Amino acid sequence: MTHSDQKNSSAAERLLLLQSHLVHGDSNVATGVRDLAEERAAASFNVVDMADFFAGGKEAADYMRTAYQIIRRDPILYLSTGSPFNDTQLQEREKTMAQIRRYVEISRNMKDPKQRAAFELAMNIYSESFSMRIYVHEMLFKQSFLLNGTVEQYEEWKDDIESWKCIGCYAMTELGHSSFLRGLETTAVFDRETDEFIINSPTITSTKWWIGMAGETATHTVAICQLIIDGKQYGTFWFVVQLRDYAAGRLMPGVTAGNIGPKAGRQGLDNGWIQFNGVRIPRKNMLMRWATVTREGKFTQAPHAALSYAALIPERLSCLFATANMCGQAATIATRYSCVRRQGPKDEKVMDFQTQQVRLMPAVATVYVCSVVSRVMMAHWGNMTSMINDQPEEFLRLLSDVHAVSAGFKAVSTWRGSEVLEMCRRACGGHAYSAHNALAGIIGDWGVVTTGGGDNIVLTQQTAVSRHAACIYCAEVVF
Amino acid sequence: MTHSDQKNSSAAERLLLLQSHLVHGDSNVATGVRDLAEERAAASFNVVDMADFFAGGKEAADYMRTAYQIIRRDPILYLSTGSPFNDTQLQEREKTMAQIRRYVEISRNMKDPKQRAAFELAMNIYSESFSMRIYVHEMLFKQSFLLNGTVEQYEEWKDDIESWKCIGCYAMTELGHSSFLRGLETTAVFDRETDEFIINSPTITSTKWWIGMAGETATHTVAICQLIIDGKQYGTFWFVVQLRDYAAGRLMPGVTAGNIGPKAGRQGLDNGWIQFNGVRIPRKNMLMRWATVTREGKFTQAPHAALSYAALIPERLSCLFATANMCGQAATIATRYSCVRRQGPKDEKVMDFQTQQVRLMPAVATVYVCSVVSRVMMAHWGNMTSMINDQPEEFLRLLSDVHAVSAGFKAVSTWRGSEVLEMCRRACGGHAYSAHNALAGIIGDWGVVTTGGGDNIVLTQQTAVSRHAACIYCAEVVF
Repeated sequence: MTHSDQKNSSAAERLLLLQSHLVHGDSNVATGVRDLAEERAAASFNVVDMADFFAGGKEAADYMRTAYQIIRRDPILYLSTGSPFNDTQLQEREKTMAQIRRYVEISRNMKDPKQRAAFELAMNIYSESFSMRIYVHEMLFKQSFLLNGTVEQYEEWKDDIESWKCIGCYAMTELGHSSFLRGLETTAVFDRETDEFIINSPTITSTKWWIGMAGETATHTVAICQLIIDGKQYGTFWFVVQLRDYAAGRLMPGVTAGNIGPKAGRQGLDNGWIQFNGVRIPRKNMLMRWATVTREGKFTQAPHAALSYAALIPERLSCLFATANMCGQAATIATRYSCVRRQGPKDEKVMDFQTQQVRLMPAVATVYVCSVVSRVMMAHWGNMTSMINDQPEEFLRLLSDVHAVSAGFKAVSTWRGSEVLEMCRRACGGHAYSAHNALAGIIGDWGVVTTGGGDNIVLTQQTAVSRHAACIYCAEVVF
Repeated sequence: MTHSDQKNSSAAERLLLLQSHLVHGDSNVATGVRDLAEERAAASFNVVDMADFFAGGKEAADYMRTAYQIIRRDPILYLSTGSPFNDTQLQEREKTMAQIRRYVEISRNMKDPKQRAAFELAMNIYSESFSMRIYVHEMLFKQSFLLNGTVEQYEEWKDDIESWKCIGCYAMTELGHSSFLRGLETTAVFDRETDEFIINSPTITSTKWWIGMAGETATHTVAICQLIIDGKQYGTFWFVVQLRDYAAGRLMPGVTAGNIGPKAGRQGLDNGWIQFNGVRIPRKNMLMRWATVTREGKFTQAPHAALSYAALIPERLSCLFATANMCGQAATIATRYSCVRRQGPKDEKVMDFQTQQVRLMPAVATVYVCSVVSRVMMAHWGNMTSMINDQPEEFLRLLSDVHAVSAGFKAVSTWRGSEVLEMCRRACGGHAYSAHNALAGIIGDWGVVTTGGGDNIVLTQQTAVSRHAACIYCAEVVF
């Protein structure tokens, strides 16, 4: 065979091979599409009905379908490379902020509030870093005004928050303390002369740490501080502090803040640190729905100690949704892979091996359980927050119960989530080691969830104490 | 207070704060050093004796101490930034290859073979990406010549391998098949006319995939291929193929290879893919210790089917060492953190909480167990390989037993490793989410270990089958 013959023959073989990919013939390289179609056709239930049920009904499912279509057709919302796996941290952050701006623009022009809600949900499912930013701003920051601010305070800030003119973060955790919140060290000292609070970070350990969007983006924060009046300490309360100016994002006088640096996941979110050095804010920047400080420096107590942390309840409940969402993505990837991956002497689908089924069926079940519980609990919380102005006593009556239950659900669902993600990873074999399989990234993102937003061990203890008290109460009332 | 007063007062406060860090006073920011010293002093055993035991005796421990000192004092071996956490994949790879070159240079000039071995071990512990490269080249590639090559073949290649003139990789896994090795598709067709084998990747799924150092570095590979003579298939055997030239690392004619892309961990190792298109190699490049093909194309069978995979036995045994090493690093980080991190109403060390102890004590125990078992098994394997030339029958007699045992140890230790790493991560609370805590990186690196190098589920089945057969044998002999 001459060199030229060999070259022609190789080229011809290569063309045949390429053709076999395109026509889905019986070459083993093209079985994937057919295998998946077969599996879908073999379902013992109506797949569309199940998708509708999963979304919370046919109407909700249709809104979600429209929302995904909007994302897919938008050149800014939809990542042009299909994934962030090749991006640097900086690139991912730029793309995520571009998504936020585009999302606000589209959302503002949507007439149908149900479509708007579905659009937000779809974006949160689509991008983890997007969802964390939305979450910090709209849930932690905005809900702090709703739950801890007066009606007037909420009204004052609402428009700037909803338009993202001001970008908010939620400064609770400090370098030295997180699980033991009473140990937080940042101070807010009342200055009677000027009717201001002076915010200070008195030690290195009092540095606000891990604060989402504090690294580069946030113009404002709600910061939890030890309230001090005339040298006396009154406990921790929330204060609104401007971090950066609107014009160019420059740090305000007395504020030092920066990036946390490289981390396990969610590279698109700028977790940061903040130090306050004699930052003066007007007295009205203390959130005063429950506890108040008057012009004269007179303090009145909040009716319920847990109120300061009320915004953490939706954070904990959102972990149920996050478990359903992240495990849902992982189970989808692992299950599809198992239906198209073939191995063994008869070239079986690996899904046909029992060892694969015992890992993936419980993973899928977890997704459905967490999805349903999440929907029920979120509806309950929605009802509660709608009472806050007209029936504050009823809101307060329900608060400690939902606090205990949400803490327990958060711990149990996120621990279970870790197990499910690892099972799905293993079910994908060696190919889960590629970033393009997405599971490594999901597991990286998930790294913070069992310890952040309340350490699971601390939370389950709180749930246990509360349930124990409830048992004793029942026993005393009934017998 | 004037602006100037305030400025002076802030500066004075800041100086006091800095001073408190330096003098280890009673400010809570400087308790770490004291807390660790206290814990160390309180040990109920002699810490140096324990370190000696852990290293395998006082002599071995002293060699390791010297080795670590060499690393720490060398500006190339020791990462100047202290860690690779801020490096890109490319930077990490460049630094790792610089470490390899420096390591070869230092190692070559070491007179004492025990010091040389300790130096290699210390480097492997110090850098995971370094260790993977050393491992691919010296264990998988070089041992393939030792275990599957003739004495002459081993002698022919030994010097170039040891000097790293040729850089080797180990091309076993293919895109379509890994656990089912008999399904591998790469072919080696004997050409009687030219006394050569022609190596081909006949399908996309036959592409060699995940091959460590194939992406950018390796000049040669041992590749497992279906041996075909006169159209008849004889099973899988190993062939040495040159991938790149020595002068500039250019791919050889007929070889296409590249990087796998972003992945979960071990960014410093260039996992790659290889396709062969009619690559011709001389007949003597088939490794012929056990099976042979003569000049006339006559094939003689290997005495033992598992021989092709003998180089996988040290790979599996090395997982015991890897578990001890990686869990050892994780347990050290988490335990030290728990001794200096304070939380709670009495500012307790978190190590004093029972919930922390039940996570960390089993982690530490795992490290000791795996370390001891690893040392015993590696000594056993060392004895076996020293028999290979003089007592090949004895080597073969022991092979299937050690294959079954190593498979079981690999699965059990790496599964346990996953649990321990996750426990250690959680024990560090939110701070494990920072890349600088190192646990996220270790968990990323670990991602491949339960499925790569033999999927744990497949391996435990092999162990079970072998032990079952052994039971039946015993029952028949005894009763």
